[in-house]
Amino acid sequence: ASIAVSGAAYGLDSKEPIQPIAAAKTKNPALAELGKKLYFDARLSKSGFISCNSCHNLSMGGTDNLKTSIGDHWHEGPINAPTVLNSSMNVAQFWDGRAADLKAQAGGPIANPGEMGFTHKLAVDVLQSIPAYVAEFKMVFGSDQVTIEEVTKAIAAFEETLVTPNSRFDKWLKGDKKALNANEVSGYKLFKESGCVACHNGPAVGGNSYQKMGVVEAYKTASKAEGRSAVTGKDADRFNFKVPTLRNVELTYPYFHDGEAATLKQAVETMGRIQLGKKFSDDENARIVAFLKTLTGDQPSFKLPILPPSSDLTPRPQPFGK
Amino acid sequence: ASIAVSGAAYGLDSKEPIQPIAAAKTKNPALAELGKKLYFDARLSKSGFISCNSCHNLSMGGTDNLKTSIGDHWHEGPINAPTVLNSSMNVAQFWDGRAADLKAQAGGPIANPGEMGFTHKLAVDVLQSIPAYVAEFKMVFGSDQVTIEEVTKAIAAFEETLVTPNSRFDKWLKGDKKALNANEVSGYKLFKESGCVACHNGPAVGGNSYQKMGVVEAYKTASKAEGRSAVTGKDADRFNFKVPTLRNVELTYPYFHDGEAATLKQAVETMGRIQLGKKFSDDENARIVAFLKTLTGDQPSFKLPILPPSSDLTPRPQPFGK
Ligand code: HEC
Ligand code: HEC
Ligand code: HEC
Ligand code: HEC
Ligand SMILES: [Ca+2]
Ligand SMILES: [Ca+2]
Ligand SMILES: [Ca+2]
Ligand SMILES: [Mg+2]
Repeated sequence: ASIAVSGAAYGLDSKEPIQPIAAAKTKNPALAELGKKLYFDARLSKSGFISCNSCHNLSMGGTDNLKTSIGDHWHEGPINAPTVLNSSMNVAQFWDGRAADLKAQAGGPIANPGEMGFTHKLAVDVLQSIPAYVAEFKMVFGSDQVTIEEVTKAIAAFEETLVTPNSRFDKWLKGDKKALNANEVSGYKLFKESGCVACHNGPAVGGNSYQKMGVVEAYKTASKAEGRSAVTGKDADRFNFKVPTLRNVELTYPYFHDGEAATLKQAVETMGRIQLGKKFSDDENARIVAFLKTLTGDQPSFKLPILPPSSDLTPRPQPFGK
Repeated sequence: ASIAVSGAAYGLDSKEPIQPIAAAKTKNPALAELGKKLYFDARLSKSGFISCNSCHNLSMGGTDNLKTSIGDHWHEGPINAPTVLNSSMNVAQFWDGRAADLKAQAGGPIANPGEMGFTHKLAVDVLQSIPAYVAEFKMVFGSDQVTIEEVTKAIAAFEETLVTPNSRFDKWLKGDKKALNANEVSGYKLFKESGCVACHNGPAVGGNSYQKMGVVEAYKTASKAEGRSAVTGKDADRFNFKVPTLRNVELTYPYFHDGEAATLKQAVETMGRIQLGKKFSDDENARIVAFLKTLTGDQPSFKLPILPPSSDLTPRPQPFGK
């Protein structure tokens, strides 16, 4: 949240419900660099084949663009993988908010049997056996012993760099009125006036509250996910999901926690109908979609990380065993 | 082969059996840029999950570092994935040389049911549905219609950029005698004098001939691969495999076509024994390994490609169907 700046900082009309996002200010670049390597390193998985980037592909908006993810042994995941872009702005992590922050989140997939299928101990053993990693952890943390806390801290620091400023919409918000065309501006007006901004607001255009999926009309899905109630145990929280950020939403198809909406057109139609009781005309729908596509910001820009080789002592991956 | 230069170009002692490699000269950078995107694009696979980079990971020496690869639906591959680094210098592609060149090779994995599991037609349909790709193909090839020939041509052009000059050994060859230490130089001498250079020679330190695996003693393996005879039909070619490049061999573990040698130490021991009838002492083995590690050159250095999003018309990936 520290990287999100309010509209006030730009002297903007404070009545706009969406504020521009600022470029990341990295406090500890060496920590984030280490985290980048770990984010791309498939040796944190049992198979040696799956890295964070497999499911949150930074070439593709930080997602896998699948309805639900493929994990270890081609396991079919239960829920759509959200983008890691701008995830540092989320009120909490996961659709149900069960992880407080990125550091708390990052340990999860490594040890999840249906994702990376490994254990924290084995992942740390692998890193500890790779001299160049040991040296880099020592440089960053000052000790010879790699720990899972250090691993998740580094990954989280890298993820904090993954913000996407300079979208056309942000340029428009900051006063460059040519950044959007009339169609897009009218899409934004419709987005505001229809009530979408009740839930999709703030610098991330979402990510800051849990809301019922199906306010006016129930959402029909085969998914077993019940959302926030899994964390709170409260019946009132059933089918409450974290509102996704709409930043870069052009890239993060398919949509919703079950990935059942293949296109933005479908997602907007569903939202209008079940959250607001509105039926948009084709033209209205297209204008909202045109607005949503102006939310695509600068994508991650860095060199493909080169990872240090395993040593003779590195435990070998187990792709085909039990 | 056009990018391999002979030692003579550097005014070197022409008696050295290994020559330095030169940086790639890219004739058509726009073509190679398009190929880079395609190389990283998992939408060329049926599942939408597997790209060339999944098995030839450019963060990891252009390999997956698995004994045999994981393909579509977690299919267990039959053979170890060779590096794509410097593969443009190979006499032909694949362990048995069944593809004449990189362009001929690149269509293979897309349509291989155990690799990317797709068809050429479907892959082309996906690209044709993505406006930014259509525009880029048009810029590069001048036509509106994407073809599989263009796809493989672009990927091959990208792969031709994947050469690794400036290894410490190349610096030494070019006259910088401090680039290697005494131990490494003595490893090189042993490599020459033992006869390794009979097969591992030229700028790629291999890649230019097919040789029997098991000259002096038969190689014991559970692998069903019989090598070159699968292409020629000749009994004399049974267990003849393309000699792998030893460039970047520190990064391309595990070794041999079955991936059964986990370490360079093991690979050198086996080579000495079955190819040359030699038993190296631990010290000799370590010196050869030290020399081999000086063959690691400049790794690929470019920004992570950002891929264009699918459109509403793009056929969706089929990760879990038949
Ligand atoms: C096999 C696929 C897979 C892998 C591997 C994977 N993730 Fe995820 N990720 C998911 C899915 C699916 C979710 C949503 C789970 C949920 O909400 O219950 C998720 C959620 C997240 C979130 C929360 C985003 C949000 O808006 O709530 C973050 C952050 C994240 N992953 C980062 C990572 C990191 C870091 C790694 C590697 C250490 C990783 N992921 C590995 C599939 C994966
Ligand atoms: C009452 C709160 C609420 C309102 C109003 C609302 N949304 Fe949403 N929106 C959500 C929630 C919650 C989700 C995630 C639901 C899920 O996946 O289960 C979501 C998901 C989306 C998605 C899919 C994002 C993704 O990455 O999966 C889009 C697009 C979207 N909303 C657009 C809109 C538009 C356009 C409007 C107005 C027509 C709107 N929303 C109104 C709460 C709301
Ligand atoms: C599922 C794993 C997998 C995928 C995906 C894959 N490859 Fe390969 N690749 C292999 C394996 C295994 C071999 C060795 C096959 C053989 O020799 O019979 C190979 C061989 C090669 C070779 C020959 C190298 C040599 O020295 O002989 C090249 C070049 C290559 N692949 C490039 C690519 C390109 C380009 C793509 C994407 C279009 C790709 N590969 C996709 C596993 C894969
Ligand atoms: C008669 C030809 C020949 C000789 C002599 C020879 N090699 Fe090889 N080498 C090969 C072939 C062929 C392979 C691939 C065999 C396979 O995988 O089936 C290979 C593979 C290797 C590999 C594994 C490379 C990889 O990426 O899998 C190493 C390392 C190696 N050789 C080193 C040596 C050393 C060191 C010597 C000398 C002690 C030597 N070779 C002598 C032909 C030879
Ligand atoms: Ca430590
Ligand atoms: Ca999505
Ligand atoms: Ca190998
Ligand atoms: Mg054409």
